[in-house]
Amino acid sequence: MTDFANRILRPERDDHPVRSLDDVDFYKFTMLHFIWTYYRKLPVRYECINRKANIPVAQVVDEAELRRALDHVRTLSFSERTLSYLFGQQYYGKNMFPYEFIEALRNLRLPPYTLSTEGDQYVLAFEGEWFEVELWETIALAVVFELYARSLLRRMNTTELCVFYARATDRLYGKLMRLRDVPGLTFADFGQRRRHSFLWQWEAVRMAKEVMGSRFKGTSNTRMAAEHNLMPIGTNAHSLVMAVVAARFSSLMEAGKPEAIRALQYDILDQWAELYGPGVRILLPDTYGTVQFFAGADKALAHEWRGVRQDSGDPIEVGEAVLEWYRGAGVEKPKEAGKLLVFSDGLDVELMIELFERFKDDINVTFGWGTNFTNGFDGLHPTPDAQVPGLSGLLWGEVKWAFSMVCKIVAAGGNPAVKLPDNLAKATGPAAEQERYKEVFGRGGRDIQEVIV
Amino acid sequence: MTDFANRILRPERDDHPVRSLDDVDFYKFTMLHFIWTYYRKLPVRYECINRKANIPVAQVVDEAELRRALDHVRTLSFSERTLSYLFGQQYYGKNMFPYEFIEALRNLRLPPYTLSTEGDQYVLAFEGEWFEVELWETIALAVVFELYARSLLRRMNTTELCVFYARATDRLYGKLMRLRDVPGLTFADFGQRRRHSFLWQWEAVRMAKEVMGSRFKGTSNTRMAAEHNLMPIGTNAHSLVMAVVAARFSSLMEAGKPEAIRALQYDILDQWAELYGPGVRILLPDTYGTVQFFAGADKALAHEWRGVRQDSGDPIEVGEAVLEWYRGAGVEKPKEAGKLLVFSDGLDVELMIELFERFKDDINVTFGWGTNFTNGFDGLHPTPDAQVPGLSGLLWGEVKWAFSMVCKIVAAGGNPAVKLPDNLAKATGPAAEQERYKEVFGRGGRDIQEVIV
Repeated sequence: MTDFANRILRPERDDHPVRSLDDVDFYKFTMLHFIWTYYRKLPVRYECINRKANIPVAQVVDEAELRRALDHVRTLSFSERTLSYLFGQQYYGKNMFPYEFIEALRNLRLPPYTLSTEGDQYVLAFEGEWFEVELWETIALAVVFELYARSLLRRMNTTELCVFYARATDRLYGKLMRLRDVPGLTFADFGQRRRHSFLWQWEAVRMAKEVMGSRFKGTSNTRMAAEHNLMPIGTNAHSLVMAVVAARFSSLMEAGKPEAIRALQYDILDQWAELYGPGVRILLPDTYGTVQFFAGADKALAHEWRGVRQDSGDPIEVGEAVLEWYRGAGVEKPKEAGKLLVFSDGLDVELMIELFERFKDDINVTFGWGTNFTNGFDGLHPTPDAQVPGLSGLLWGEVKWAFSMVCKIVAAGGNPAVKLPDNLAKATGPAAEQERYKEVFGRGGRDIQEVIV
Repeated sequence: MTDFANRILRPERDDHPVRSLDDVDFYKFTMLHFIWTYYRKLPVRYECINRKANIPVAQVVDEAELRRALDHVRTLSFSERTLSYLFGQQYYGKNMFPYEFIEALRNLRLPPYTLSTEGDQYVLAFEGEWFEVELWETIALAVVFELYARSLLRRMNTTELCVFYARATDRLYGKLMRLRDVPGLTFADFGQRRRHSFLWQWEAVRMAKEVMGSRFKGTSNTRMAAEHNLMPIGTNAHSLVMAVVAARFSSLMEAGKPEAIRALQYDILDQWAELYGPGVRILLPDTYGTVQFFAGADKALAHEWRGVRQDSGDPIEVGEAVLEWYRGAGVEKPKEAGKLLVFSDGLDVELMIELFERFKDDINVTFGWGTNFTNGFDGLHPTPDAQVPGLSGLLWGEVKWAFSMVCKIVAAGGNPAVKLPDNLAKATGPAAEQERYKEVFGRGGRDIQEVIV
């Protein structure tokens, strides 16, 4: 337990937003191992994009402070303790990471960033070899979100800070108790990237473990998993497919082989399965659309992979599509077969409960609860009608503490990277390139929905 | 701001419930000066009495821990800083305390206590010369209440502690905002004796100052007044009259002079007025009943004293009696004449607002807000239906954090001391002696009401 209000009033010298390299999602390590094995030299570019331009991040976050925090990350290297933790990792089976990969991690330093301002937004980008750049994604987001929160928090007086955090504590507890009251419901922390702060995520994880017991399945944050004796949770993310496809998209198109592009999204899964056993095999079908993914997927994936993660589109529709796919692939009873359906898109308590009740009898359901778990502060300021000092026209009650800022891979191998998920509001990549991808992956099965977080 | 939950989990070495001798009500100093001037050698006895026997204090508070805390108080002496603060005190006019009195404070050490157990209750008593014993009263209570709270708090897990304090923070803030929204309403902190803890009182005072600004008039706690740059608030208490009357009651009765006993309650006020100017002249009329007090009071008191404090009886009835007395004494417009009516009995927000609205046009009204300000925790435990560990049959939701424990003067000059206030549930002294007092002070004008705190 931390005295959050006091930590804003009297920050400690080492209160960097990201203070160690293991303060990062565990899926980054499974990804890095994959990248190191197959694509370590692939040049990539990541860019942070604020999807909600009405949040003036560059007005709120001081540039010098942002540079200090990012520069600090560049001074970090993995501790021997972390390297041992990874090398000895047993949750997903023994020896998941080879020693040579651990050696590569030991030598890893994060490459330079470029930071500029466009209007009220920062343009924060990272370029280099994929293996070096990949960690920046969720680290950069965590840095920006924490500095954004701190800048706002410094505009509160002591009482406002105390009451704000008191209410957040009570709100989080209330949500956890609501979840605890639903028998069998489980979840894991997926909230590193848009967390309110390092310390708040730490407390949220601590409280979830105390309230939920073993029904809190773990945290994506590697450091916090270790410190709280929890399972580090993570498998793969969209950038895996996006980078590999982007690197080869143009040449395959020029060669007139769109089917080879479509096949790539599955080839990558085969590469993944060469590295990892079933525990790390969770399908993420929505990179270019869930409908086309399942339509073209080999039935073996339904048997050999542990489950599916839903990260865009209508969760009930996607859930039903997953069940249909399993049955069509001969997995008649996905639940009895141990298949897992992981929801991770814009979750909050009531949605989790609804999805759990809907699918729990047909498949093993769990949740990767992110932003509303680690950054659920909206509406808690004690005087919502008061102006936020220094931000003309903004009232405390209007402040969004978490918003839909992402850090996405925008190029790989010199080609623009594209994401075309079930919710087109989450699509990334140049419009012309998105069109070329639609030619390959089809146009159906996608909607535009409001992006919550 | 303090990390309250953490301070229970990891107490600091010097977290004594009372950690300095100035952590005491300011009225103790005005009283001590009076006692030192007129009655310093009078032998007195104080006893702590739990009016609510259904709260098993001796089951909750460990005897060894209680002894340690009380023994620690006996090691304390006034710091030079505190002595300078008192000698230089200017809120109530210059030079209110003579240097010889400050010298006497410098040499003051608290005398021994006696502690025994009767059933589930402690019997905690203090005997000695009045000047030495007087400070024990509110110090002993603060020690017992804090150890009682700590013992219960140690039975909570970290999440329960965090949520419990979070809710208390939000509740206190809500109360302060409610008071702030009533234009002109003012109050002072009178909550030292039954405070939840030293640290919590400190935070309550801090927050009240920040939320209410100058409408928070100060605190009775001398140390906290100094630390928060607030006015130390206090004048006199019932023990003043009780001790002096008890010391002479028998001899005057034997001499057949009950009228001299009745006169004593006013003679003491004259002695007080010799020492202090109008700022410290607040009448406390209910020691032996407000009706008889006003019936026998010289009209000069209405003019020469600043105001009246209501500490028992129906506050509206007493308030009306005060106004009637002022008008009968020729103070036609008490408000314009600067007269003050201080309510201090079992207050909470709604009652304060009701009393303020009722009397604000007729007299200057303020409040000495005590236990609900510094110890308002009832009903905040996150799982009220769960058992309190180690206290068979008690649920968290049933726990009373503040209860009507008092430390009262029970003898002076070898005679039992008696209090017969407007609420007979707050009466103290042996039944036979109460009867003798009723012969002198009359039987009318008193009720039995439930004692809130």
